[in-house]
Amino acid sequence: MLIGKIVGTLVATQKDEKLEGLRFMVVKPVDINGKPGNNYVIAADAVGAGVGEYVLYATGSSARQTVLTDRRPCDATIMAIVDTWEVEGEVKYRKNE
Amino acid sequence: MLIGKIVGTLVATQKDEKLEGLRFMVVKPVDINGKPGNNYVIAADAVGAGVGEYVLYATGSSARQTVLTDRRPCDATIMAIVDTWEVEGEVKYRKNE
Amino acid sequence: MLIGKIVGTLVATQKDEKLEGLRFMVVKPVDINGKPGNNYVIAADAVGAGVGEYVLYATGSSARQTVLTDRRPCDATIMAIVDTWEVEGEVKYRKNE
Amino acid sequence: MLIGKIVGTLVATQKDEKLEGLRFMVVKPVDINGKPGNNYVIAADAVGAGVGEYVLYATGSSARQTVLTDRRPCDATIMAIVDTWEVEGEVKYRKNE
Amino acid sequence: MLIGKIVGTLVATQKDEKLEGLRFMVVKPVDINGKPGNNYVIAADAVGAGVGEYVLYATGSSARQTVLTDRRPCDATIMAIVDTWEVEGEVKYRKNE
Repeated sequence: MLIGKIVGTLVATQKDEKLEGLRFMVVKPVDINGKPGNNYVIAADAVGAGVGEYVLYATGSSARQTVLTDRRPCDATIMAIVDTWEVEGEVKYRKNE
Repeated sequence: MLIGKIVGTLVATQKDEKLEGLRFMVVKPVDINGKPGNNYVIAADAVGAGVGEYVLYATGSSARQTVLTDRRPCDATIMAIVDTWEVEGEVKYRKNE
Repeated sequence: MLIGKIVGTLVATQKDEKLEGLRFMVVKPVDINGKPGNNYVIAADAVGAGVGEYVLYATGSSARQTVLTDRRPCDATIMAIVDTWEVEGEVKYRKNE
Repeated sequence: MLIGKIVGTLVATQKDEKLEGLRFMVVKPVDINGKPGNNYVIAADAVGAGVGEYVLYATGSSARQTVLTDRRPCDATIMAIVDTWEVEGEVKYRKNE
Repeated sequence: MLIGKIVGTLVATQKDEKLEGLRFMVVKPVDINGKPGNNYVIAADAVGAGVGEYVLYATGSSARQTVLTDRRPCDATIMAIVDTWEVEGEVKYRKNE
């Protein structure tokens, strides 16, 4: 999985019927220090995350293993909201700080 | 998923029988501001999209989860037409504008 | 899927039993104008394609969805021979021209 | 698979129910000589590895084939702790040295 | 699939039970002329290959389709030993030459 920051949303009304009810978020992968880069991915939200939050997202077939995304044509899913991560003893991010 | 702009079409009459009836589009992935790059992917169309439209496409095994692409040897599928997306409060694209 | 040009062949007699009978082609992915780059992939041939032809190939689990490659340890398969593709109204390639 | 060095941990309490009980590690892929780069991946731990250890991790659907990660939305899993590897007759790493 | 040269071996005694009995090889992908680069992958060996040999390896879920790797958490498998490959009429490699 990778850590990403939710920076926006995407709306698509004309879509495959299996996508009904999914929310699409614009997510920027962040580096190990939490800094977003220039890339992005559009991910389905399986945990009720919001813009500005740091999240974990899975890609590929693993993105379809949540209850919400099961058997849907979805290759990226937000499946956790990050509380904190640390690297070599240093806290790189803590939610609500 | 990634956002792409449909820039063309591809025709292939001699193909695996499981591909019969699929339409192939030439899609350029776009950056977060909607600008197409130099890369492309050939994607099957599952939503009746046309040249010039901004779409969402899924890759890998997720590309086979639409009704149209089920169990077909297809690794990229257009499964939604984008209405709009916004990043940090700014609308980056709106259909028909 | 990506468009590739078949530039060669590969022979391997000592292999997993599930690979028996597959033909392996050396394929160079081409850019949107049809120009081959320096990369290559070894793909199984599911459509009777030959050296010099432009083809579509699928990768990952989708490469196993043809009748020929079903349940085989094969992650790239040629599943169509390209007749033509066009980008923004311009024909980039036409077979037999 | 790739070799990685575990450099940290990540905590996420609000997550898809299928992720309950998994431990998330921050892993830096290393080069063939064992040197970590700037990239990272968040991997589930299936073998009881700890910070500082060199491990093998699998990605994609293969990451779900351990007993611990079966059918979970997890696309990277640590499934072995490395004892040693050698390249062209030279030992590049040995555990506990 | 890609062509790789086996350059070493890796030993891991503490691992997921489903990996028991697999041999892990250090493989360098080679370019179309057979020259190894700086990248590597750790692949399971399904054909009894040895250090110094040129092999074909599959990645992703296709790496689990050999008899040896079925349902194991393994995302790269050597499934053929290369005898020869040629590009545009030129033999790039022949075993035992």
